[in-house]
Amino acid sequence: MKLKAVWMVLVLLLLGTAAQAEVVTQPVPYRHEGVTLEGYLAYDDSVKGKRPGVLVVHEWWGLNDYVRKRAEQLAGTGYVAFALDMYGKGKVTTHPQEAGEWAKQIAGNVEVWGQRALAGLKVLEKDPRVDPHRIAAIGYCFGGATVQQLAFLGAPLKGVVSFHGSPLAPTEDQAKEVKAKILICHGAADPMTPPEAVQKYIAAMEKSGLDWQLIIYGGARHSFTNPDADKVGMDALKYSKSADKRSWAHMKDFFKEIFGGK
Amino acid sequence: MKLKAVWMVLVLLLLGTAAQAEVVTQPVPYRHEGVTLEGYLAYDDSVKGKRPGVLVVHEWWGLNDYVRKRAEQLAGTGYVAFALDMYGKGKVTTHPQEAGEWAKQIAGNVEVWGQRALAGLKVLEKDPRVDPHRIAAIGYCFGGATVQQLAFLGAPLKGVVSFHGSPLAPTEDQAKEVKAKILICHGAADPMTPPEAVQKYIAAMEKSGLDWQLIIYGGARHSFTNPDADKVGMDALKYSKSADKRSWAHMKDFFKEIFGGK
Repeated sequence: MKLKAVWMVLVLLLLGTAAQAEVVTQPVPYRHEGVTLEGYLAYDDSVKGKRPGVLVVHEWWGLNDYVRKRAEQLAGTGYVAFALDMYGKGKVTTHPQEAGEWAKQIAGNVEVWGQRALAGLKVLEKDPRVDPHRIAAIGYCFGGATVQQLAFLGAPLKGVVSFHGSPLAPTEDQAKEVKAKILICHGAADPMTPPEAVQKYIAAMEKSGLDWQLIIYGGARHSFTNPDADKVGMDALKYSKSADKRSWAHMKDFFKEIFGGK
Repeated sequence: MKLKAVWMVLVLLLLGTAAQAEVVTQPVPYRHEGVTLEGYLAYDDSVKGKRPGVLVVHEWWGLNDYVRKRAEQLAGTGYVAFALDMYGKGKVTTHPQEAGEWAKQIAGNVEVWGQRALAGLKVLEKDPRVDPHRIAAIGYCFGGATVQQLAFLGAPLKGVVSFHGSPLAPTEDQAKEVKAKILICHGAADPMTPPEAVQKYIAAMEKSGLDWQLIIYGGARHSFTNPDADKVGMDALKYSKSADKRSWAHMKDFFKEIFGGK
């Protein structure tokens, strides 16, 4: 009976730990150059002490539920995740034309683009739960390009991961600033980055001397990680369950490497 | 004291399990078309029941210590690994010219190439520890090309992984036979597969309709997984610790997917 009691205590302890692990989320307002922004913070409040932080940059749609879920997923694996806001509080759309215009407004000015992203990174860096020496940035589509820009600005990141973002090569001067390792997750059938662009990217990165990896998922189109991609009604956009799962696993491997063992 | 005793039993049980986990290896002689071959089997004898099997195909050097170590590594993670022999018992070299000739002798005749590899696969399939429905094949350099040929022959494989092997596209007829998912791990600076060949591969695979992934490791040259690569004295060949570790992790993700949870 004593043995049984010990087992029960052990089981209860284990169950208790699992039940306490709860992802807490909260909107975080902040400003950049007079623009009111609102990001989305997610973390597991059963985790004690400082831990790696992951900045999440949204697709051209803006900070929507999809990217919130990604932040929650990251929090569930023990990181502090912050989905930043590139457009302005509540500025979200489902219309490709509007999304395209908004993305262009930001990305059209490289200075604004980078600084707006840095403003989001600062929010994450200052979070008391975050180890500021272990931060990565991931991004989807427009956000994938954004995290590469962050790297080129010399942001203090251990690594960046781009999911179906345009692969960007740094200038010679930018390459000197880069601290982050770079992982590009790309769909082979993504018409927004045709084969010639991939080819050019590889050649430019080989010249850059940076630490980079490019993973090409056969058959995957643009937006392959987003289950809502098919709803848009654009042939270029399509969810791929296999490429989604694979790229997430590849990101986790990358985090293990750059964060050390986590 | 009762509690302490229970803990001690638990700890001893755990230690006991760890101590028993031992990789057993043995040479396995077999024949193909009158040629005497000798492969190398490795498994963990503390694992009970049938488990996935991994066929390992050597570089152009032949079945040497490097590929034996890979088989042992795979056995250490719970698989039954069989390093097959493409050349003939004891036929191993460290001279690139000789290695090139031997590889050409085999690969020059596609029929012999495939059948010789299938003979090795059969040895693994028949191993009583192996679940014949969960077999993958991995290969290095010449062996990477070989496992792709195996897939094109319609071999009953869940997946194939090529490390710095030439990426090969199947003919239309071959593509219909393929049962395996395909993962190509490629060094961006591998002169044996220049960028144009990579480009062609991507285009051909997109037409094939197969399940494929291509991972490109920035800066990695040919033979990037082999710590002895630098000893050869060829500029094209160089070990890369980061690309080695990354590609091994990517292979493990792939196995998790194709073998289901392992």
